[in-house]
Amino acid sequence: MTTIGIDIGGTKIAAGVVDEHGQVLQKTRRATDALDPEAIESAVIAAVAELRVDHDVTGVGVAAAGFVSPNRDGMVFAPNIAWRDYPLRERLARGIDVPIVIENDANAAGWAEFRFGAGRSARSMVMLTLGTGLGGAIIMDNQLVRGAYGAAAELGHMRVVPHGHYCGCGHEGCWEMYASGRALTRAARMALVTDEDRAGRLRELAAADGTRVKGQHVTQAAAEGDPLSRELVTQLGHWVGAGAANLAAVLDPELFVIGGGVADTGDLVLEAARAAFRAELSARGYRPEATILLAEMGGDAGIVGAADLVRY
Amino acid sequence: MTTIGIDIGGTKIAAGVVDEHGQVLQKTRRATDALDPEAIESAVIAAVAELRVDHDVTGVGVAAAGFVSPNRDGMVFAPNIAWRDYPLRERLARGIDVPIVIENDANAAGWAEFRFGAGRSARSMVMLTLGTGLGGAIIMDNQLVRGAYGAAAELGHMRVVPHGHYCGCGHEGCWEMYASGRALTRAARMALVTDEDRAGRLRELAAADGTRVKGQHVTQAAAEGDPLSRELVTQLGHWVGAGAANLAAVLDPELFVIGGGVADTGDLVLEAARAAFRAELSARGYRPEATILLAEMGGDAGIVGAADLVRY
Amino acid sequence: MTTIGIDIGGTKIAAGVVDEHGQVLQKTRRATDALDPEAIESAVIAAVAELRVDHDVTGVGVAAAGFVSPNRDGMVFAPNIAWRDYPLRERLARGIDVPIVIENDANAAGWAEFRFGAGRSARSMVMLTLGTGLGGAIIMDNQLVRGAYGAAAELGHMRVVPHGHYCGCGHEGCWEMYASGRALTRAARMALVTDEDRAGRLRELAAADGTRVKGQHVTQAAAEGDPLSRELVTQLGHWVGAGAANLAAVLDPELFVIGGGVADTGDLVLEAARAAFRAELSARGYRPEATILLAEMGGDAGIVGAADLVRY
Amino acid sequence: MTTIGIDIGGTKIAAGVVDEHGQVLQKTRRATDALDPEAIESAVIAAVAELRVDHDVTGVGVAAAGFVSPNRDGMVFAPNIAWRDYPLRERLARGIDVPIVIENDANAAGWAEFRFGAGRSARSMVMLTLGTGLGGAIIMDNQLVRGAYGAAAELGHMRVVPHGHYCGCGHEGCWEMYASGRALTRAARMALVTDEDRAGRLRELAAADGTRVKGQHVTQAAAEGDPLSRELVTQLGHWVGAGAANLAAVLDPELFVIGGGVADTGDLVLEAARAAFRAELSARGYRPEATILLAEMGGDAGIVGAADLVRY
Repeated sequence: MTTIGIDIGGTKIAAGVVDEHGQVLQKTRRATDALDPEAIESAVIAAVAELRVDHDVTGVGVAAAGFVSPNRDGMVFAPNIAWRDYPLRERLARGIDVPIVIENDANAAGWAEFRFGAGRSARSMVMLTLGTGLGGAIIMDNQLVRGAYGAAAELGHMRVVPHGHYCGCGHEGCWEMYASGRALTRAARMALVTDEDRAGRLRELAAADGTRVKGQHVTQAAAEGDPLSRELVTQLGHWVGAGAANLAAVLDPELFVIGGGVADTGDLVLEAARAAFRAELSARGYRPEATILLAEMGGDAGIVGAADLVRY
Repeated sequence: MTTIGIDIGGTKIAAGVVDEHGQVLQKTRRATDALDPEAIESAVIAAVAELRVDHDVTGVGVAAAGFVSPNRDGMVFAPNIAWRDYPLRERLARGIDVPIVIENDANAAGWAEFRFGAGRSARSMVMLTLGTGLGGAIIMDNQLVRGAYGAAAELGHMRVVPHGHYCGCGHEGCWEMYASGRALTRAARMALVTDEDRAGRLRELAAADGTRVKGQHVTQAAAEGDPLSRELVTQLGHWVGAGAANLAAVLDPELFVIGGGVADTGDLVLEAARAAFRAELSARGYRPEATILLAEMGGDAGIVGAADLVRY
Repeated sequence: MTTIGIDIGGTKIAAGVVDEHGQVLQKTRRATDALDPEAIESAVIAAVAELRVDHDVTGVGVAAAGFVSPNRDGMVFAPNIAWRDYPLRERLARGIDVPIVIENDANAAGWAEFRFGAGRSARSMVMLTLGTGLGGAIIMDNQLVRGAYGAAAELGHMRVVPHGHYCGCGHEGCWEMYASGRALTRAARMALVTDEDRAGRLRELAAADGTRVKGQHVTQAAAEGDPLSRELVTQLGHWVGAGAANLAAVLDPELFVIGGGVADTGDLVLEAARAAFRAELSARGYRPEATILLAEMGGDAGIVGAADLVRY
Repeated sequence: MTTIGIDIGGTKIAAGVVDEHGQVLQKTRRATDALDPEAIESAVIAAVAELRVDHDVTGVGVAAAGFVSPNRDGMVFAPNIAWRDYPLRERLARGIDVPIVIENDANAAGWAEFRFGAGRSARSMVMLTLGTGLGGAIIMDNQLVRGAYGAAAELGHMRVVPHGHYCGCGHEGCWEMYASGRALTRAARMALVTDEDRAGRLRELAAADGTRVKGQHVTQAAAEGDPLSRELVTQLGHWVGAGAANLAAVLDPELFVIGGGVADTGDLVLEAARAAFRAELSARGYRPEATILLAEMGGDAGIVGAADLVRY
C-alpha cells in the first residue's frame, strides 16, 4: 500500500515512495526548467519509474504551486510554470500506469501535517505556511477543503488592512504582506532606516552575505537573541495570530499549525501568535479555543502529503 | 418523509411541517420568554404535538441563535437565552419521541437557501444574512461546515479594519460593524451630522416613526430613490463585497447568497457588492469567479432549513 | 500690570487676578447655567467687580470652549453654551470698562503652559490636553496659532484611522477616539469582555463607584500597578506619541506638553508617548527632535492663560 | 528693490531677477552636479554675477530641497545633495556681497503662490505640491511657518493609514504614498493587474514611451477622458481632500492651494479633493470653510518665492 509523492518546484522535482504511516522509504530528485512543461513531465515519469524498481506502488500524487482543478486532474493556473487549464494528469498518464492525482503544494504539505504531524490527532485544522509568502491548507471534518474551483485556502490573500501594503497580487493589505518572510524583509529594511542604532547585527549579517537585509537574517539574529530582530519576529507573530482569529470566526478549527521557514524562530513566533489570537478571538470565553502548534514534518511534507492524498 | 422545523427566537417560537421539497405544509407559533428555558421547551413540545396531529413526521430540527455543540445535541452558548452547555436535545426528548437535531439559526437559514433557494444548484455556497448584525453559513461540498466546536461561520466577526469600529463582541473592526443593519444605522446618524442638507428624507421618516434614524429608514428611503440613502446602501454593499472577496480567498465557494432585511434593497446592494467583489478578488482572471445572488426563501428559511437538516 | 482671567465652564465660572509672572493673587467662582447666556454674562461681570475691589487690573481675558472669532471679540460656536456668532465681548463690555479678549479655553491653558509652565523656555510648542476629549493649542514663534477662523488646534479631530471609531463629531477615526479619557473608557469596557480574567481591579473600582468602568478607574488602577490598566494606558500613550509624530511633520515644534487628567498617570503615559513618537517620527536622525513633557500648571491654567493673553 | 531668486535642483540651478511684484525680469541656468557642493556654489555665484550686470539687487534668496536651519543660514540636511549641517550662506557670501537667505524649495514655491498667485488675497494658506512626492508650505498670519528646526510642512509624511503603504522615509502609511505622482504610479500598476480590461490606454501610453506605466501616463490619459485613469485621479483627489481636512483641524487655514504635476489634471483632482474635504471636515457647518484652489505660478514659483523671501 505504498504510493509515490512528487513535489514539483520551480527548478527541480523531488519524489519519494511513502508508506501508509507517512514514512519516506526512498527518494530521488531531478533538476527541471519551469519554462519547459514537457521536460517536467518527462522528469516526473522518469522519477516514478526509478522508484518503482524497488517498490510496488498503487498510485502517484503530484503537488505543485497554483490552482488545481476541482477533480484533481489538472492545473487551472500556476504562477511559476507555463500551465493554464493544463491536463497534467492526462499528460503524465502517458508514462505512468497507476492512478494519479494532482494537488496544490500547500494543500499537500498541510495534509501531511494533518495526517502524520502536528495535526495527527485533530479532525479539523488550518495550516499556515510562512515561507516567502503565506500559504495555507484547510481540513474540516477530515476532508481537505479545495473550494469550488480548486482555489480555496489562498489564506495569504485575505485583506487585513484596508489601503495597506501593496501585494504582488495587485491588491492592498493582503495578510501575506504582514505575515511572511517577505513581510519580515520589509520590516527589517524599514528598521534600518528608523531604528538605525539597534540594527547593527542585521547589517552585519547582510554584509556577510553580500546582500541587502532579508527575512532570513532576522530569523537568524532573533535566534541569537538580537533585541530588534526579536521585536520584528514578535510583530510578525502578532499578525499571524490576528489573522488566525479571523479564520477562527470563519472555520472554528480545532488546531492551527504554523510551518515554513519563519516558523524556525519557534517559541518566539508561536507565543506572539498565541497572544494575539487570544486577544482577537471573538466570543472568547464562550467557546472552546483552537490550539496553535508548530509544524513537525519538515521539508518532506509536500512529498508525504501528495503521496497520502492518492488514498483520499 | 415530512419533518418539523422549529425556529426559536427571543420572544417567540415558529414551527412548521416541511416536506422533502422544502414546502411548508402547516405552521404554528407560540410566544415565549427568553429568560425561562423550561417554558421554551414546553412551547416547543406543545407545538410539535399540535403539528403531529395531522402529519406523520420522522424528526424535528430546532434552530436557535448561538453556538451549537458539534454533535448537534445542545447549546454551548446562546446570546439571548439562558443556555450555557445546555443539553437541549435531551430536555426536548422528554416530550418528543422522534429524532431531534439542534442547529444554529443562521446555519439553518443558509441550508434552506442551499437546498431549495438561490443555492439549489450549487455544491458550495456562503450565506450572508444582513439583519441587525451579519450572520453566515458555509456549505462546502454539500456539507454544512459547523467547525470543531460548532462556532464556524461567525462571519460578522472577521476583522476588516484594524482599530476600527467597536463591536458588541468586545473587538474592533468586525465586518458586522460595516455590513449590517447596525452599520447602516450608524452611517445614517453620522450623515445627519456631516451631510445635514441631504438628510431631509431620513429625518422625515424617523420623525414619522417617533424614533432616531435607523437602518430601516435608509433602506426605505433608498427604495424611494433618496440619493443620500442610496449612497449609504452602496457603501454598505461595498463592504459586503470586499468581505466576500476575503472569504473567497479562504473558501473559494461557487456562490454567495445575500439575505436579511438589508437585502430588501435588492439590486442596489447587490450591484455594489458585486463591484467590490470583482475589485478585491485576489487572482481575478486566473480562476473562475463566484456568483453573488439575493436570497429567495424569505421568512420561513429557518423553519425549512432546520426541518431539512434532520435528514443530514 | 495685573489682569483678570475668567474660565467659563458648563456649570460654573472661575475667575482670578493674575500678575505678570503668572501668579494667581485672588480667586472667585460662581455657579452658572449653560442654557442662560445672560446669566453667564452677569456672573462674569460680578466676578470681575468683586476682584477689582482689591486689585487694579488693566484687562480681562475670557476663556471658553468653542470656536472664537479671529479678532477675539466673540464666539463663532460653542458646543455646550447657546452661543452662535455671539458678540460676547460687546455684551461683557456693558459691565466691564477695561479691555476684554475672548479666547478658546484649550488655547488659554496651552498659553499658560507656554508662558509659565513646561514650555516657558520654548519658542514653539504644541499642547495636548487629554481630558474627556483631546484638546490642543499651538504656539509657533511665540505666537498662538488661532487659524483663519479661530478653529485651529482642534487636534483631537485629525483622522488617524480610516474607517475607525465613530466620533461624536460625526466622523470616523478621529485622534480623540484613541487618545483621551473617552478612549480609555472604551478600551476598559472592551477589556472587561475580552480580558475578563485580568479585569478584576477595574471591576472593583467601578463597583465601589456604583458605575460602569470608566477612564478614571483605569488611571487609578494603573497608578496602583494593575497590569491590565498599565497596558491600557501604555496603548493610549502610543496613540498620543504617534499623533504627535504627525504634528511634528506639520509643525516641527520644539516641545509637546501633555496635560489633562490622563496625564496624571505621569511617566507611564509619557514614556509610551515618547517611544511611539521616536518610532513614528519621519526623518528621525536627520533633524533635531522635539521634547515631550508633562504639563505643570494644574487646574488654574485656563485662568492664567486667559489673563496673560490680554497682553498679546 | 529687485532681488535674485535661485532654485537649486539635483542637476541644475535656475536663477532669476524678480521685482517686488513677483515679475521675473531676467533668467539664467547652469548645469550642476549634486555630488559636488563646491561646484554648486561656484555656479550660484556666477549666476548671480551674470544677473547683476544689468540689475541692481538688494539680496539673494536661495531655495533647495531639505531642512533649512531656523535662521536661514544653512542646510541641516538635504536628501539629494551632500549637505549636512552645512553653512551654505557663509560659503556663498564669499562671492556675493548682498544679503543672502536660504529657504526650503517647497516653502519658496508656496510663498510665491501666497504673495503673487492663488493665495495673493489670503492671510493664511497651505500649499500642497503634488509632484513625485507631496511637499508643502504653511503660511499663518502672513508668516511662513518654518518650525523650530526648519522641518515644518513636511506634509507628505503625516501618517494617514496605520500599517499602510511603505514610504521611502522608512514609515508606513505616509500621506505621500496616497497623494502624489508616486501614488498614481502605484495605483496604475495595480490597475494593470486587477482591472486589465480597462487599462488599454495606459498600456498604450507606456508602450509608446518604452517604459512601465507611471503617473504621467495616468494624468495624460485622464485628460483625454480615459475612464480608468479618471477614476485613479479621482481617488488620488479624495486622499488630497481627506488629508487637507486633517490639516484644517490643525491649522484652520483660509485656503489650500494644489500645485505640482498632478494638479495639471485640473478640475478632476480639484473637485475630488473638494468633495472629500467637505465630507471629512470636522465641525462642518459650525465654522467657515477653507477654499481649495489650483496653483497659478507655474515653473518659476521657486525662483520668485526665494527672491521675495529675502524681504521677510
